[in-house]
Amino acid sequence: MSKKAIQDHYPDDVARCYGCGKLNSEGYQLKTYWVDDESVSTFTPAPYHTAVEGFVYGGLIASLIDCHSTGTAAAAAYRQAGREIGSEPGFRFVTGSLHVDYLKPTPLGVPLEIRGTIEEIKGRKVIVRSTLKADGQICAKGRVVAVEMPEHFQAK
Amino acid sequence: MSKKAIQDHYPDDVARCYGCGKLNSEGYQLKTYWVDDESVSTFTPAPYHTAVEGFVYGGLIASLIDCHSTGTAAAAAYRQAGREIGSEPGFRFVTGSLHVDYLKPTPLGVPLEIRGTIEEIKGRKVIVRSTLKADGQICAKGRVVAVEMPEHFQAK
Repeated sequence: MSKKAIQDHYPDDVARCYGCGKLNSEGYQLKTYWVDDESVSTFTPAPYHTAVEGFVYGGLIASLIDCHSTGTAAAAAYRQAGREIGSEPGFRFVTGSLHVDYLKPTPLGVPLEIRGTIEEIKGRKVIVRSTLKADGQICAKGRVVAVEMPEHFQAK
Repeated sequence: MSKKAIQDHYPDDVARCYGCGKLNSEGYQLKTYWVDDESVSTFTPAPYHTAVEGFVYGGLIASLIDCHSTGTAAAAAYRQAGREIGSEPGFRFVTGSLHVDYLKPTPLGVPLEIRGTIEEIKGRKVIVRSTLKADGQICAKGRVVAVEMPEHFQAK
């Protein structure tokens, strides 16, 4: 397992994402690690991240899958380039499309584990598939088309 | 336009959703209204709801589309049943699947307008299509398969 999360390698000017930016003190600060051939994030929702009593809000699940996947895409791009994560110039991806299937209600109060694998890398595009587990059960599945951040999107 | 938001008709025991529950003081409290044959929500993100500087976080966009769509599904189910929104027994939908296409970066600092239309109603399932606009431009499109909340999902 990598010692430092993928997101902790993002340069400061692109590290303010509400979902995973290490510099966004209001946000979720999701951390994603490579473990063998998968990416893994864990996150424990707050009690108010609820849909209905006892279950996790679906928008949060979508958000976690989103940031997990763009982080995974960056790691995959580094690997494809044969470079260490965090080496310059950095890879930073944004979301082209996000799909989430909610398979069963996700219980609130336990850590969620998100695991991602690479479906395809094609030019500036990486497709990431992921699962979200709670209590050992898959509660949601995601598919994200991540696109390398265009320059006009970057902070000035 | 309806005077009261669709979500304000949700019974208290299912009104704690982080995205749209009127009783969740930590959440977004999204409000959706019927205007002619469309549903409309507006939401102004906070400065920290950012992806990269100047742009809105995609996970928030997914969350808004999610709650907008389940609210729209409830309103559509009332209309299909020929009943007033809020009449008993209440309709409350959860998300079966969520798809968002991010067409262009969404500027931060302006109100976002989400508009939804019904693609299909079939049994307990309602499919809602939506667009999210900022500064008059469509920045994202959503498609949600909303499913009437099963009883085992409801708060006790």
